[in-house]
Amino acid sequence: MLKTTTKLLVTTALIAGITTAASAADKVKWKLATTWGSTLTPFIDAPTNMASLVETMSDGKFTIRVDAANKHKAALGILDMVKGGQYEMGHSASYYWKGKDIDTLPFTTMPFGMTTPEQYAWFYYGGGMELMKKAYAKHGVLSFPGGNTGNQMGGWFRKEINTVADLQGLKMRVPGFAGEVMAKLGLSVTNIAPGELYTSLERGTIDALEWVGPGMDISMGFHKIAPYYYTGWHEPATELQFLVNEKSFEKLPKDYQQILLTAMRVSAYDMYIQNYDMSAKAWSTMLTEFPDIKVKTFPKDVMDAMKKANADLLEEVKKESPIVKEVLESQEAYQKQARKWTEMSDFLYLKDNL
Amino acid sequence: MLKTTTKLLVTTALIAGITTAASAADKVKWKLATTWGSTLTPFIDAPTNMASLVETMSDGKFTIRVDAANKHKAALGILDMVKGGQYEMGHSASYYWKGKDIDTLPFTTMPFGMTTPEQYAWFYYGGGMELMKKAYAKHGVLSFPGGNTGNQMGGWFRKEINTVADLQGLKMRVPGFAGEVMAKLGLSVTNIAPGELYTSLERGTIDALEWVGPGMDISMGFHKIAPYYYTGWHEPATELQFLVNEKSFEKLPKDYQQILLTAMRVSAYDMYIQNYDMSAKAWSTMLTEFPDIKVKTFPKDVMDAMKKANADLLEEVKKESPIVKEVLESQEAYQKQARKWTEMSDFLYLKDNL
Repeated sequence: MLKTTTKLLVTTALIAGITTAASAADKVKWKLATTWGSTLTPFIDAPTNMASLVETMSDGKFTIRVDAANKHKAALGILDMVKGGQYEMGHSASYYWKGKDIDTLPFTTMPFGMTTPEQYAWFYYGGGMELMKKAYAKHGVLSFPGGNTGNQMGGWFRKEINTVADLQGLKMRVPGFAGEVMAKLGLSVTNIAPGELYTSLERGTIDALEWVGPGMDISMGFHKIAPYYYTGWHEPATELQFLVNEKSFEKLPKDYQQILLTAMRVSAYDMYIQNYDMSAKAWSTMLTEFPDIKVKTFPKDVMDAMKKANADLLEEVKKESPIVKEVLESQEAYQKQARKWTEMSDFLYLKDNL
Repeated sequence: MLKTTTKLLVTTALIAGITTAASAADKVKWKLATTWGSTLTPFIDAPTNMASLVETMSDGKFTIRVDAANKHKAALGILDMVKGGQYEMGHSASYYWKGKDIDTLPFTTMPFGMTTPEQYAWFYYGGGMELMKKAYAKHGVLSFPGGNTGNQMGGWFRKEINTVADLQGLKMRVPGFAGEVMAKLGLSVTNIAPGELYTSLERGTIDALEWVGPGMDISMGFHKIAPYYYTGWHEPATELQFLVNEKSFEKLPKDYQQILLTAMRVSAYDMYIQNYDMSAKAWSTMLTEFPDIKVKTFPKDVMDAMKKANADLLEEVKKESPIVKEVLESQEAYQKQARKWTEMSDFLYLKDNL
């Protein structure tokens, strides 16, 4: 059996629970809840495109209604709703559940972690999917890659950062594990609703914020009020997530299972490429309209302090559960091996072709 | 209509030719001819996995038999066989048809061209698919991405290359457009069957050769006899190709069309990730077993000479047909824009994380 086939094709293990499979001719109607609003391109496109593909491939017999956050009003309740069966599917990000279950933290992206192709290689050929299945088994939920943003930018800053001391007391909107790293370095880390970010930055309520990258940042307008755009270190390959209620999945006939798996997989890859295109185009527009944007990389001293804070925090996290330890160590080992290839291939090629 | 949806979903234009579509319940049996041998992983995996997905998603009703080159004996006759209808589908590489139709040259990869994510973004969101459709329309054949190797290595050399003069008279196996660039620099360019490459290099019949990258090179054993492994410049994102006879495609019911399109698209992305994993692992093995392999990048003078020869050759190619000119100019414009984003995102991230 070929490698890819084993990974993507429905395996007997997955469908072992089926006793009375529905006939493929039966109509199946599912609902999916997303964390995102109905206009948040490209995040919302991943589940919408996935649902369209499922419907067309099943000749209209398997339909999935996509409910955006404005409809179900529980943007960060997706895991619970899929677990409880109110929704057969969800679309969100695994690291949102870290407060509930630390084992789910590493499946989105990690500071100083893998790039997008490295991380997909880890998921599909390096044991990542098996570990994600293990981490989510306790919830009766299946988890799959749901679309990648590529490398995220380090954020918009009103002032230049030259030393670690410049970070002290800085008020910054930065969520997730990166927020914990920044807090350890003395920043005052806050979370602010997206709709209030521009005003908060403009009025000085915050001094800095990170969002995603040019493709999604441009419509927020931050480049008009914060001249320093720092390159990324904290989310090198943010992967969104499809969640599927395991019992619902087991009830599907085998062809619908494969249609669903394939539609999720291709929509995830596509979002990575769609966002790559969006960022390339938006960055070009930003530079034309605001040629004074200053692209900066944090100085070595600052980066080293972030790396140390991150490493210390990771050691603490590994003590919290044997599963999260196993996942983080698997990622670290894979990254170490894959990064040598990334350096020799794309990195050295780009060095001579910028 | 969302962007991705427009690109991947079957459009009415594509199915306008259907007058009497077969019922989705009908059995469809197709054959696919590949350029590759039955054991050439990961190239052969892309069509094999695609066919498995189509079969499972159609509940066994749409099957595609994959014939490897050892069966049909026409490794480089794939376009002709799909055009003539002996095979409904093919799996090969577009640049193999450049002698027959220059318009097909740019759809695989170009020296000093786009990286894999840049090129997928160009195909799916930058107008590439529309241009490929235009280039292949005269053949009555549809062409789709068929799997990417990622950045290919510049090849194995028995001696170090320090100056442009060191290239003069060097005998090298290097096919395609890169071969023409090398010939312009004074190399004696030859093509040799894969099975004879090792012996030719060992006996000095050739001084150098390029193959793919660590993942596929390792089983060839070149690292045991040529110590210098040059980084890539000539095939930064080699994309294989699915070919589909247009009339056969139009006869498929709409659900089978979408099943086929989705299975091709996901299998292509998957091959990129599969080969990334293979190269990461193989490179680690090579370094452990043969720590004396010397990774080299061609010196600036040599690289500049290659870039100039490449640019001169491209200007000649553009005069050959208006379509190839349009495609090359579209790629150049897209690369220029996307490379700025690649530099600011992955390149600067990797620079601090090697």
